[in-house]
Amino acid sequence: MARVLTLTLNPALDLTLRLDSLQPGAVNRSQALVSHAAGKGLNVAQVLADLGHRVTVGGFLGSANAAPFEALFHRRGFLDAFVRVPGETRSNIKLSEHSGRITDINGPGPLVEAEHREALLERLEQIIAGHDAVVVAGSLPQGVEPEWFALLLRRLKACGVPLVLDSSGAALRAGLAVAPWLVKPNEEELAEALGVASTELLTAALHLRAQGVEHVLLSRGAAGVSWFGPDIALEARPPRVEVVSTVGAGDSLLAATLHGLLEGWPAERTLRQATAIAAQAVTQLGFGIHDREQLARLEAGVTVTSLA
Amino acid sequence: MARVLTLTLNPALDLTLRLDSLQPGAVNRSQALVSHAAGKGLNVAQVLADLGHRVTVGGFLGSANAAPFEALFHRRGFLDAFVRVPGETRSNIKLSEHSGRITDINGPGPLVEAEHREALLERLEQIIAGHDAVVVAGSLPQGVEPEWFALLLRRLKACGVPLVLDSSGAALRAGLAVAPWLVKPNEEELAEALGVASTELLTAALHLRAQGVEHVLLSRGAAGVSWFGPDIALEARPPRVEVVSTVGAGDSLLAATLHGLLEGWPAERTLRQATAIAAQAVTQLGFGIHDREQLARLEAGVTVTSLA
Repeated sequence: MARVLTLTLNPALDLTLRLDSLQPGAVNRSQALVSHAAGKGLNVAQVLADLGHRVTVGGFLGSANAAPFEALFHRRGFLDAFVRVPGETRSNIKLSEHSGRITDINGPGPLVEAEHREALLERLEQIIAGHDAVVVAGSLPQGVEPEWFALLLRRLKACGVPLVLDSSGAALRAGLAVAPWLVKPNEEELAEALGVASTELLTAALHLRAQGVEHVLLSRGAAGVSWFGPDIALEARPPRVEVVSTVGAGDSLLAATLHGLLEGWPAERTLRQATAIAAQAVTQLGFGIHDREQLARLEAGVTVTSLA
Repeated sequence: MARVLTLTLNPALDLTLRLDSLQPGAVNRSQALVSHAAGKGLNVAQVLADLGHRVTVGGFLGSANAAPFEALFHRRGFLDAFVRVPGETRSNIKLSEHSGRITDINGPGPLVEAEHREALLERLEQIIAGHDAVVVAGSLPQGVEPEWFALLLRRLKACGVPLVLDSSGAALRAGLAVAPWLVKPNEEELAEALGVASTELLTAALHLRAQGVEHVLLSRGAAGVSWFGPDIALEARPPRVEVVSTVGAGDSLLAATLHGLLEGWPAERTLRQATAIAAQAVTQLGFGIHDREQLARLEAGVTVTSLA
């Protein structure tokens, strides 16, 4: 089993409130409030832990509401390399009505200052040795510009540890220029970052490979995944599943693909299992590998074909 | 200056989110999120601290999100006598739209078990000596029945420290039977707890006095305050102010009246200042004494008349 570092620069506290029906302008009572520490890098970390890896987590965390995050790290045995910043990590509130209607209210995060950015770089350079891969996932907080994000990625890459990137928009564009070892955009993210049409995405993926990106994992929701790598040009289609929530599906795909690569598995086996783990995430309110039998059934239903 | 213990059995984390307009069923972005540790006993504690008193705070606090409360205690120099219970202190979410429309979503709190109730009683009996008054304010959490609440009040009263009560519903009804030293209901709360019409409230207040309640402070919003005590039958009307938020106004009235009583001030001076401090709270988004000149102007505008 490997040791992986995952970075979440802009984590979030997800608050899900269940109520009968949302009455704007009135006092509503919620029956249940579920809050959990979230963020793409932390989601990847949890699936990696489910797959047996040891994980270090880092990024920026508002110090005023760090407790739920620290509880998660403790519960999952994550090493905590997060830099604390003043203020609160953003809260993303989900109001879930009995009718099934969902209203999201996404808050702003804390401001990350130069001293915190510097502190993260220093900490990462101290701890990165001994890790087999580093995953940088999610959006950028206030105070982190794409230019600094690219600097962070270059520094990580210079450490010689395989660098995995999952982001979007300007952050993905800046990150692609650094040529990470593996990138996992979805179709929309890659089309937006490169400014290409959705029909040109396979060409764009091969172009990224030519620029030095070793693995391009292109996720296409229910339509599956395309994977381009050294001697790898594969497409996987998941079995049809009932969608409960897509939260964490892309993160599961990324974590499970990294798992296969770290274990030295054949590409076809890696992609089959990763596609099944992502499909399993879709069948849950959360994500993660809690039912090995269901996973085996889903794996048997994945179709992997060669694009070569 | 005195030393006061305030108890908040059911504190709340108030989250105020500002957004342009709430679109149910969509992803909304909030421009600002302000969260603060709240609860009637904690509000009273803060105004008492503004008035120069040393304060101990206690009650039940969910351990999973205690950090913002602990930060408040540290900032204000409060001694922390809260019993920690598993789970999260309830969150009360306020969605504030540009139009001025407010939508409240009030969450459930943690469950207080027998062991926590026992722990609070034990802790209070250890620390209450040396306090000049104890204020019990706010609603009851899940797991605390009015019968146990009355037991708590009886135990506190038996310690010989003046007992102040501000609650509502069944908790107020149970508490009145214990005959606290001072109670501060508003008109609606007293009418509901005693099952009397709003026209009978002055009679009801005198009846409470006859049953052993030393001070009855009846708040009537913008219409002012009536105060019945030993040789005290006063009414105060605040000056007209622009209402920004009524949060903490009743708690300010309570804290400032207690301040005058602890300082041995004449009743008229006490009521005048307390009415002005409550009016000042109404002019703010929060509450507290931040502008002494404004307070002096408001005090000059308070009318105190005798009801005798």
